[in-house]
Amino acid sequence: MAQPTGDIGLIGLAVMGQNLILNMNDKGFTVVAYNRTTSKVDHFLEHEAKGTKIQGAHSIEELVSKLKRPRKIILLVKAGSAVDDFIAQLKPHLEPGDIIIDGGNSHYPDSIRRTKELEAAGLLFVGSGVSGGEEGARYGPSLMPGGSNAAWPHIKEIFQKTSAQVQGEPCADWVGESGAGHYVKMVHNGIEYGDMQLIAEAYDLLRHGLNLTVDEIADIFVKWNKGVLDSFLIDITTNILKFKDEDGEPMVDKILDKAGQKGTGKWTAIAALDAGTPVTLIGEAVFARCLSSIKEERTRASKVLAGPQKEPFKGDKQQFIDDLEQALYASKIISYTQGFMLMRETAKELGWTLNYAGIARIWRGGCIIKSVFLGDITHAYEANPKLESLLFDDFFNKAIHKAQPGWRRIVAQSAIWGIPSPAFSTALAFFDGYRSEIVPANILQAQRDYFGAHTFRVLPGKENAKLEAGKDIHINWTGRGGNVSASTYIA
Amino acid sequence: MAQPTGDIGLIGLAVMGQNLILNMNDKGFTVVAYNRTTSKVDHFLEHEAKGTKIQGAHSIEELVSKLKRPRKIILLVKAGSAVDDFIAQLKPHLEPGDIIIDGGNSHYPDSIRRTKELEAAGLLFVGSGVSGGEEGARYGPSLMPGGSNAAWPHIKEIFQKTSAQVQGEPCADWVGESGAGHYVKMVHNGIEYGDMQLIAEAYDLLRHGLNLTVDEIADIFVKWNKGVLDSFLIDITTNILKFKDEDGEPMVDKILDKAGQKGTGKWTAIAALDAGTPVTLIGEAVFARCLSSIKEERTRASKVLAGPQKEPFKGDKQQFIDDLEQALYASKIISYTQGFMLMRETAKELGWTLNYAGIARIWRGGCIIKSVFLGDITHAYEANPKLESLLFDDFFNKAIHKAQPGWRRIVAQSAIWGIPSPAFSTALAFFDGYRSEIVPANILQAQRDYFGAHTFRVLPGKENAKLEAGKDIHINWTGRGGNVSASTYIA
Repeated sequence: MAQPTGDIGLIGLAVMGQNLILNMNDKGFTVVAYNRTTSKVDHFLEHEAKGTKIQGAHSIEELVSKLKRPRKIILLVKAGSAVDDFIAQLKPHLEPGDIIIDGGNSHYPDSIRRTKELEAAGLLFVGSGVSGGEEGARYGPSLMPGGSNAAWPHIKEIFQKTSAQVQGEPCADWVGESGAGHYVKMVHNGIEYGDMQLIAEAYDLLRHGLNLTVDEIADIFVKWNKGVLDSFLIDITTNILKFKDEDGEPMVDKILDKAGQKGTGKWTAIAALDAGTPVTLIGEAVFARCLSSIKEERTRASKVLAGPQKEPFKGDKQQFIDDLEQALYASKIISYTQGFMLMRETAKELGWTLNYAGIARIWRGGCIIKSVFLGDITHAYEANPKLESLLFDDFFNKAIHKAQPGWRRIVAQSAIWGIPSPAFSTALAFFDGYRSEIVPANILQAQRDYFGAHTFRVLPGKENAKLEAGKDIHINWTGRGGNVSASTYIA
Repeated sequence: MAQPTGDIGLIGLAVMGQNLILNMNDKGFTVVAYNRTTSKVDHFLEHEAKGTKIQGAHSIEELVSKLKRPRKIILLVKAGSAVDDFIAQLKPHLEPGDIIIDGGNSHYPDSIRRTKELEAAGLLFVGSGVSGGEEGARYGPSLMPGGSNAAWPHIKEIFQKTSAQVQGEPCADWVGESGAGHYVKMVHNGIEYGDMQLIAEAYDLLRHGLNLTVDEIADIFVKWNKGVLDSFLIDITTNILKFKDEDGEPMVDKILDKAGQKGTGKWTAIAALDAGTPVTLIGEAVFARCLSSIKEERTRASKVLAGPQKEPFKGDKQQFIDDLEQALYASKIISYTQGFMLMRETAKELGWTLNYAGIARIWRGGCIIKSVFLGDITHAYEANPKLESLLFDDFFNKAIHKAQPGWRRIVAQSAIWGIPSPAFSTALAFFDGYRSEIVPANILQAQRDYFGAHTFRVLPGKENAKLEAGKDIHINWTGRGGNVSASTYIA
């Protein structure tokens, strides 16, 4: 048998898989392609892969036999049991040090489990976020690999050559151990939900607040895309707004306002709740999609629920537009602050070491949230890898202070107008809560102690003989009942 | 052996269990008490239960032998495996038609499972929310039983006599099948989180916006408690605000502003995300607790993040206070609207028939959220058991329209002041989104189709030859790429 020449194997020849193979082939790697329905392999070799170095395999055994050691095999199959099935099929044919990479949209707890299981079997596992869709896969995706740390040196070159490049730097870096790759991908998707919602709210305020035409709004987006908001999503939204149907009407005016949501945005919000981290903007973005989806109920509601009297806008329109740009920018800073906070808390909880600068760098290109903004985040974490919060970085600290007055005016105006801005509003509420040494949770704690003897702690500086520092304190608020705190209380 | 005389058995003699036994005994029922550590049984009989009809049991067998058929046994033990352990111990001693009731703080998926398992064994299961803490258990809790429908006739009298009574009506009613009892209890707790957060925000705006003293705020709460906000939580907050430490300082000023949150509020928010229902107010209330808990980080943030210049309030203070009452009321209407929406969606998904009027009736007394307000909700669902949304009920429809102007002013003012009001704001954003026939989700759908070929639907009334009703439509936005929609796209 001939010496194997395959640099990497790939299982799953849907469009994403085919494109990633073609991309890796372009970068000089020899890829071995396998698919469960093997006729797909033949078709691929005879068509898209014709004239390339790409090899085919018609069985797992053949696939494995064609790979150089340590073997690297990427799965691009449906998340869930299909991944486990292929891992089980591969395992008996692999040798210690071989690497299985899951490039699908897996939920991170599965990747945590798979890392553990494969390492126990002497193999290495990588769960990698792959972003950028079909086009990204073909010409340069954003790659977020994590898992068995020992795997990285072996896949680094392939990943970094295959990924998108921004200013000469690859959008692929090792993000951390265990399930970190898919965790980071999940947070990426949550942030994507947030960015999209912010753009939708800005559009809504321009359209129904200032009563601008779609063309006028497109012109504003063109300008925004040259400033701090410069990003893929602003760019494509500009193109979307300019897109006319054959009758000359803007296409957006013909699109049903019901958005899908059962995806990774929801996972991020749930992860935030589980971690006890206030990732409010993504939460509101997910809920906004939920609200959009009950269109029929909203339509019935619109007949019986009236908003405020609509008065023509008397302020300075250009000022409003500039304020809105700042509101979007500030809210975006908050959303990324929350996203990185979530990663930080999860890393703390699971004992992961995450590569924050690397994560921001990866996201600068190849994916949906790519933007100039992410370059600034990269700088912030490069300058201080232990940065506690994006808001503590000089650049973002200055930016949010500058944005603040306009941001407040936008949130206030949207409340008065009756145009919903849940993401702008929650971002501002978070900012105001976050910068408050004192929040009114003392009231909550008093209530909980009053009705359920849940106890509270004393505020530093207010200690006395009965209110001792570090002690769980219960007060007999009513004069009735005992002084015993109730561990068994059911709220 | 003597004929058994026990009406009901209770396992678990912590304070809640003991109090519930004493309560049922007061109402004329013969209760048999059992605890794993049987010395607790003896101690209880010799002390708290002395001179009553309460009987003790020192084994599961003895407990079962002392109960009339069909036997009814309440578990008041730690949620989780302890419940399953006792069920397993009980099962061999029970006969068809006997009823096991779990009165602990179980998560509803467990109650769904247990109902199924016990029904398969010929037994009946009830998972019951029990609210009101120790005092409620002793003198009248709010009881939310659900599970095997056939169980209700047998436990109805005990439950309805033991529960709190409001205007001659018991705060106990059958809420629905399967896990409905604990589901409803979970939503109750989520709503409790929301109500508490709203009160905390109102306090904060009075304290740091109007710069009122704690005493002045207490006086406002006294007045509010005579109006539409009349409720247990407003009442106890009044008492809390009036409570002075020995040095005369208000006790609330000495309580650490870090609130616990890892409970059922979080479950409710996660259930909302899973059901795709925009329960935004509870979500924000949970996140507000999360934000409160990072006090040290907030303190550091407070040093480097400045809010707006604080200017003295120039408006009419009384108007502001009245506006605030309306903002709290309107936000509360939204929170309950969302809570009932969540129950409705879950009932739809799981095929449950929920007793909405009954649920509101139960919550009027015995529990933390008890209020006059819940009487109005009861009326709404009694008048129309199929009411789609609380906001469609005449009473609440009028109330929210009346509240609207003041509510908007409060949300706007808090944004300008820099005092966070995440719950007031999200409630308003929901209201404005809910009453909008058109929301800007068309932008999201266009973006999703642009970058991921996710397709969209046409807005009714805008159909044409290329934009067909009921079809998933993909547009080649860029002129590049294909027209194939990508089912395999990974966002």
